[in-house]
Amino acid sequence: MDRELKIGCIGTRGHYGQALAELEQIENVRLAAMSPGGDSAEGIKEWCNKRGEFAEYFENYQQMLEKGGLDLVIVCGPFEKHAEMTIAAMERGIHVLCEKPVALKIADLEQLKRCAEKNPRVLLAGMMFSRYEPGFFTAHQLVSSGAIGEIRLINARKSYKMGKRAEYYHSRSTYGGTIPWVGSHAIDWVLWFLGKQPRSVCAMHSRIGNGGHGEMESSALCQFLFDNDVAVSISIDVLRPPGAPTHGDDWMRLVGTRGVMEVRPTEIHLINDENDGSRKVPVASDRTLVGDLIEEIRGGKKGLIDAAQTLELTEMCLRARDAADGNGKAEFKKH
Amino acid sequence: MDRELKIGCIGTRGHYGQALAELEQIENVRLAAMSPGGDSAEGIKEWCNKRGEFAEYFENYQQMLEKGGLDLVIVCGPFEKHAEMTIAAMERGIHVLCEKPVALKIADLEQLKRCAEKNPRVLLAGMMFSRYEPGFFTAHQLVSSGAIGEIRLINARKSYKMGKRAEYYHSRSTYGGTIPWVGSHAIDWVLWFLGKQPRSVCAMHSRIGNGGHGEMESSALCQFLFDNDVAVSISIDVLRPPGAPTHGDDWMRLVGTRGVMEVRPTEIHLINDENDGSRKVPVASDRTLVGDLIEEIRGGKKGLIDAAQTLELTEMCLRARDAADGNGKAEFKKH
Repeated sequence: MDRELKIGCIGTRGHYGQALAELEQIENVRLAAMSPGGDSAEGIKEWCNKRGEFAEYFENYQQMLEKGGLDLVIVCGPFEKHAEMTIAAMERGIHVLCEKPVALKIADLEQLKRCAEKNPRVLLAGMMFSRYEPGFFTAHQLVSSGAIGEIRLINARKSYKMGKRAEYYHSRSTYGGTIPWVGSHAIDWVLWFLGKQPRSVCAMHSRIGNGGHGEMESSALCQFLFDNDVAVSISIDVLRPPGAPTHGDDWMRLVGTRGVMEVRPTEIHLINDENDGSRKVPVASDRTLVGDLIEEIRGGKKGLIDAAQTLELTEMCLRARDAADGNGKAEFKKH
Repeated sequence: MDRELKIGCIGTRGHYGQALAELEQIENVRLAAMSPGGDSAEGIKEWCNKRGEFAEYFENYQQMLEKGGLDLVIVCGPFEKHAEMTIAAMERGIHVLCEKPVALKIADLEQLKRCAEKNPRVLLAGMMFSRYEPGFFTAHQLVSSGAIGEIRLINARKSYKMGKRAEYYHSRSTYGGTIPWVGSHAIDWVLWFLGKQPRSVCAMHSRIGNGGHGEMESSALCQFLFDNDVAVSISIDVLRPPGAPTHGDDWMRLVGTRGVMEVRPTEIHLINDENDGSRKVPVASDRTLVGDLIEEIRGGKKGLIDAAQTLELTEMCLRARDAADGNGKAEFKKH
């Protein structure tokens, strides 16, 4: 039988709750330690209390990592500390599941890249939960099996409600920008489906209409060009009306040489040689992000997102955001 | 009673058939003359024969214009002659309904601009039929009445089937490019809804996967930035699968400060303070492009598209296409 894996959790900004919920479904893992990491650990404490479990509390996250014994740490500290916290864990050989983006600045990302290169056996995954949603999960399988031929064009959208957001969303230095925070999922689908970084991106974003949220951008567009003239447009907004039936309006459209597919979290609309769009495509996903990561830690098969893609995705987001600051264009180095 | 208006028709490339079909619905107008204009007049002859009408045939379109007596000419000659034919008519005081794009090169467009400035009382309209489709027509009324607040972001799409296209589609010099030919409608909705030209455009296009259609581009993206940081993404492709239920997949999404609207030719999906998206929005249009033009010629109210917008639209299309040739960016002069 597998030995019990010990998990630590730093902070409660972002999707720590979803990570813990997925953890509950996995046998032989235990939340062993927590730290507020400059934020709060209240939500983690509540999760433990509800389950009648105990996890050791550390005011200082470095001390938590230092004490040893952790196999995996969930990083949900202040966004601007993602890179620092991830590096601290990886350098101690602790695998990391980090809220995206794993860095808010290119300089921090470069440090993280060097750390990942030095520690190739330590796993790092960004919280790209949406790869595991039934629609996107099934779409990737279908596209990989040739359902639409070669991809020529992708349009993707993230649209969220603004609501009333905490103070740290109001400032670029603690939020990072709407392209990395909201747009990263759409950019991640593209990276996942195309399997490589783009050649360039043209981007723009705007704070106008953000309902008093300081520097937070409420709308953005990114236009990526990939090898072989594959074109990608990403639309991002936080202007979804309060009365909309769901918080988000995730959507992707893939145009291939022999078919077109529209994808949402729980549905796929496909037109190709075999389907004129009138037949529903069954969607399903029997895996989770945390489940895959635990399996990989135990020496099983690889999950859907690894350190290399986590870092490539972050670079795409940050270069697009920085280009958008000047309504300009960024080139990617590898090309 | 209004006097009978005499119409001439040059050539049969593009949507002359739709123009003639709309003409049939109008009283006191008559197709009086036709010319192949370097192409063919067969389709026009057939239309006359079916209706038992007679229209004088001119091998040479200039002679047709020269003979006098025409109030309006429908220009559907070879695309690369649109500008020359339109100028020839306008300089003789004849109003023009021209297939889009009204020019294939910036130099031709500049000539046409000068001609329009010299002849301010001569009407010129590009064939932007889609403004009159019930969905787009109603959407414009709703947006004008504030249904979504201020527009912050627009995504629009044109997607067509490729099929087997005539030889003149295979060459840039006779076709003009997919951004002007297919994309112009989507770009036109944006011009119409925002009411002005953009500050800049980033564009790309590709011929890959065009099924043996020479220089014809099969996919394209345009990202326009307007004043006040209003962002627009346009997706264009001619990769719609042969088995799709319709030839085109026209779609526009408008994101405003108080609502989001998705528009198709015969339907609107609206989410705002008053509609959570579950109630259907009734759509209707009781006007036509040709009907409006005839009414304006008779001194009645203005149609939806005038010479200024026809020329602005053409400039947006051509600058985007030229930028796409280098995967680059173009600025618009007025800004």
